[in-house]
Amino acid sequence: MPLTPEQQAEIDEQRAQTTPTRRATAPGMEKHLYTAHPVLDHGFIRVIDYMGDDNAITQAARVSYGKGTKAVSNDEGLIRYLMRHWHSTPFEMCEVKFHVKLPVFVARQWIRHRTANVNEYSARYSILDREFYIPAPENLQAQSVINNQGRGETLQGEEAQRVLDILREDSTRAYDHYEEMMSEDGQQGLARELARMNLPANIYTQWYWKVDLHNLFHFLRLRADAHAQYEIRVYAEAMCKIVADWVPFAYKAFEDYRLGGTQLSGPGLKVLQKMLKGETVTQESSGMSAREWRELMEVVEG
Amino acid sequence: MPLTPEQQAEIDEQRAQTTPTRRATAPGMEKHLYTAHPVLDHGFIRVIDYMGDDNAITQAARVSYGKGTKAVSNDEGLIRYLMRHWHSTPFEMCEVKFHVKLPVFVARQWIRHRTANVNEYSARYSILDREFYIPAPENLQAQSVINNQGRGETLQGEEAQRVLDILREDSTRAYDHYEEMMSEDGQQGLARELARMNLPANIYTQWYWKVDLHNLFHFLRLRADAHAQYEIRVYAEAMCKIVADWVPFAYKAFEDYRLGGTQLSGPGLKVLQKMLKGETVTQESSGMSAREWRELMEVVEG
Amino acid sequence: MPLTPEQQAEIDEQRAQTTPTRRATAPGMEKHLYTAHPVLDHGFIRVIDYMGDDNAITQAARVSYGKGTKAVSNDEGLIRYLMRHWHSTPFEMCEVKFHVKLPVFVARQWIRHRTANVNEYSARYSILDREFYIPAPENLQAQSVINNQGRGETLQGEEAQRVLDILREDSTRAYDHYEEMMSEDGQQGLARELARMNLPANIYTQWYWKVDLHNLFHFLRLRADAHAQYEIRVYAEAMCKIVADWVPFAYKAFEDYRLGGTQLSGPGLKVLQKMLKGETVTQESSGMSAREWRELMEVVEG
Amino acid sequence: MPLTPEQQAEIDEQRAQTTPTRRATAPGMEKHLYTAHPVLDHGFIRVIDYMGDDNAITQAARVSYGKGTKAVSNDEGLIRYLMRHWHSTPFEMCEVKFHVKLPVFVARQWIRHRTANVNEYSARYSILDREFYIPAPENLQAQSVINNQGRGETLQGEEAQRVLDILREDSTRAYDHYEEMMSEDGQQGLARELARMNLPANIYTQWYWKVDLHNLFHFLRLRADAHAQYEIRVYAEAMCKIVADWVPFAYKAFEDYRLGGTQLSGPGLKVLQKMLKGETVTQESSGMSAREWRELMEVVEG
Repeated sequence: MPLTPEQQAEIDEQRAQTTPTRRATAPGMEKHLYTAHPVLDHGFIRVIDYMGDDNAITQAARVSYGKGTKAVSNDEGLIRYLMRHWHSTPFEMCEVKFHVKLPVFVARQWIRHRTANVNEYSARYSILDREFYIPAPENLQAQSVINNQGRGETLQGEEAQRVLDILREDSTRAYDHYEEMMSEDGQQGLARELARMNLPANIYTQWYWKVDLHNLFHFLRLRADAHAQYEIRVYAEAMCKIVADWVPFAYKAFEDYRLGGTQLSGPGLKVLQKMLKGETVTQESSGMSAREWRELMEVVEG
Repeated sequence: MPLTPEQQAEIDEQRAQTTPTRRATAPGMEKHLYTAHPVLDHGFIRVIDYMGDDNAITQAARVSYGKGTKAVSNDEGLIRYLMRHWHSTPFEMCEVKFHVKLPVFVARQWIRHRTANVNEYSARYSILDREFYIPAPENLQAQSVINNQGRGETLQGEEAQRVLDILREDSTRAYDHYEEMMSEDGQQGLARELARMNLPANIYTQWYWKVDLHNLFHFLRLRADAHAQYEIRVYAEAMCKIVADWVPFAYKAFEDYRLGGTQLSGPGLKVLQKMLKGETVTQESSGMSAREWRELMEVVEG
Repeated sequence: MPLTPEQQAEIDEQRAQTTPTRRATAPGMEKHLYTAHPVLDHGFIRVIDYMGDDNAITQAARVSYGKGTKAVSNDEGLIRYLMRHWHSTPFEMCEVKFHVKLPVFVARQWIRHRTANVNEYSARYSILDREFYIPAPENLQAQSVINNQGRGETLQGEEAQRVLDILREDSTRAYDHYEEMMSEDGQQGLARELARMNLPANIYTQWYWKVDLHNLFHFLRLRADAHAQYEIRVYAEAMCKIVADWVPFAYKAFEDYRLGGTQLSGPGLKVLQKMLKGETVTQESSGMSAREWRELMEVVEG
Repeated sequence: MPLTPEQQAEIDEQRAQTTPTRRATAPGMEKHLYTAHPVLDHGFIRVIDYMGDDNAITQAARVSYGKGTKAVSNDEGLIRYLMRHWHSTPFEMCEVKFHVKLPVFVARQWIRHRTANVNEYSARYSILDREFYIPAPENLQAQSVINNQGRGETLQGEEAQRVLDILREDSTRAYDHYEEMMSEDGQQGLARELARMNLPANIYTQWYWKVDLHNLFHFLRLRADAHAQYEIRVYAEAMCKIVADWVPFAYKAFEDYRLGGTQLSGPGLKVLQKMLKGETVTQESSGMSAREWRELMEVVEG
């Protein structure tokens, strides 16, 4: 359970208050506001604020004075057109701010996406909580034997248990020592900015993360992908659900054209065109490398 | 008068609607929403949406769960501390979206600020309106004789009149020809994307411009400055007033530490310290160039 | 002819000098350095500096200590893999700086790409040259009747002539008045920053533009595309040729996977997979809109 | 000693090769190329590539055709003017690429500067080396009692020894367990992307980091500052020395106007002006808070 009763009370208090506003309001997003959606064993993601809705996208694309056309079907068609043809700036007109609690090694992947605003909890000023990510047994996998960057089979029995014991014990000891080094009881007490270096990468941190919808989609395409590491993918999947409620037209277009879509190379496209005409094409005749051919056949066969 | 009755009606309709929201709401900003504040002869600036308030800055700085401390004085102190010590990320947690109508030559300066989201009215798809910036006589100045990049004395009498006549006549003719080239009446009609090249830089364009508060402050520091060109400065000044209503603590800190503040060089600081101790310092003994010395004396004398 | 003899002499002088360097050097790029490649009637593009080569991409992807593997085939395979799987950061490790002379209406499209560094010739400080883009007759097209944003048939005879006359005469008059307003002969002389507003969008400007290879590819994909306006496409095409000489492996991968490739939507992919299995699919059974179906069929048929 | 003999040999090989280039070459930077400058106990910083020199800054500011003026004094004056008046884009025309080896907790601070290109060694693909930052005894400080974010007195005797023992033993054990979990000897072997979560924040990582000079100066102003954490400051200081050799005029201007300079608030400036006229000003009469007043007096007194 990631929240203390005090934190839950603060959240409940914020959720209980509403104020009238003249701004565009997305009913599907209002219901998410402030609620902590649990992710992993101690993490969460919660929406702190948002700007805009589906209408804000078409309104900006048209540079319009008011809400623009009342015909909802026109709006959806325009949004799909913009997504299909890589018009990114209208999607930048929506913005969302999340509060995320996540393990440090996930935070390190996440921060590689630079086009966002971030305020992270500071371990120079403050003391981190004793909370570590310990994977569920079904998420402990061996190194993949076919992919340098992936996971293979799930670890079995004793080996899995040994891993979990190591992670638990090393985390506990590291945190005990972290506290011990900083303690001012009978000693000076090491500076926080130094003591933190003893903490392992499965400790939880938290941050406020604000991003526009275009860049969020870019993040989600990479991180909700099957090749992303499980521990970041679950955050991306939680955000996908939230975004689907916030901007349903834009999310559907994103799902159709990006998440569920695929990129064909020029040579790959020629192969497909020949195949559709009934011609026989082989890797050799295509001029593609074995790897490129295999990836193309995976796309073709679904 | 920059708005048609239809545009004004659309704005009025949007202003008349309020919806309850759980989001942070800034009362000083709600009153500005959608209203077109006139700038120059046909331009305007209007707030389309915003995210956050003063409290959102401190909340992010503290990575807090709820609204954070209730003590308003703490919030103001923290905001001033963050501004003074160049902590920029908490200010990035507020966002604002403007609809701006502005002459093309102003737009060209404005767009040099890259950390913002922009959707401009497209003269490839659409036909621009017949609206041109013609300066008021008091804003017609001669080239500065002491500053390559500035204006000097106001033009007088006949010369001013000649300039205004040229600007008006050339604008009118250029627009007549723009329409004539595109006309499909008895001819094919030139493509819009080509015809637009005949239009001068004082024609008005418009865009949606969205920016976070930190980058907006950066823009305002440069463009609300006395050295900025008058025609962009008036937009910056209009935004300053809006921002002061939106996030009063942050704006006050910005005014004290950036707008009204000054940067002292290391050598300049040493000169001041000596002067305060009663020592006599001259340009020669300071080691500064004549120009640097003059600029420092301007700061010293106020 | 875009260059004065003095400018040509400066360029020749720079081309004549070589210095030994320990940095990675791309022979294909050295030959382009400083040379002005003509674009449009008065424009050009020239390489001022560059950083990195194909090897710099794989070196960064491997975070290696030296030049990395000597096996060139490995390098090409890795570069293609990185491109195919959207690993963008290794391509960011190459950088290029161009000096570009281009009409203002092209500059206004170009600058929408924000992830680049720009220094533009300032019409606040300096006086622009009397050089205007006047299209060649074969590049004067009518507004497209099937595409809001495109060109259709080439203008014929008298209409074409009228357009060219208008563009030439209005440019000449605008520039005469620009000079006249600024003249200090018998009058004060209007400030440059004001006088420039009378100049039309086909006047030439120039800038230094510096960008990394990833963002350059993004620019080229959009601007070397058949849907881009002709007047910016010719700059993109000139850059494509230069980049192909600079980083041949990366450019080939870009050509195969981006320029010549296509994006299939999830629903579009399903349609293709059915077709390849010999099933009959129609727009109706596909659930796609008429427009999306038409665009898919264009891809299928090549 | 941070480098293996193989790595040193690769570096030596690269340093031994020179190629003629037409590009601008900075002799002060050539001598640094590839050399690993040691930082902390196992870290280093080395220049991999660079673009531009002092002249490239003025050349871009002038948008010139050749090398520009031969008068070096003009160049320095212009560079100082540009720095003093916050003209940032000419400084963006120089670019540098570093290879940095640094502890993870330093990398996490560093990466907050988003306007740069980064390729980090991947612990999903590869196995990290057994190298941990263990502070020198003189760099072990207690938490500051006057500043939440700083260090106070140096730890003494037994306490210092206990801290060093903890850091060494926990690092060793964590790495032993990291290897043990991944081992495929008699077991499946945990995936690398999971095993890494057991590693503490003092383990070394490495990356390629590329940045333009303007953004590098921004980084250095914050990180070479006395308030920055020691462990990142030493990297910033090593870069300062390198930059001083690369672009001596720009670095001197940076030193005078940014590093050694100070920002005065509007109220602070008024206080100084009164003091210089011989008036007595107190905190009360100034209207400043106690903290702001104290910070101003520190500036005044040097």
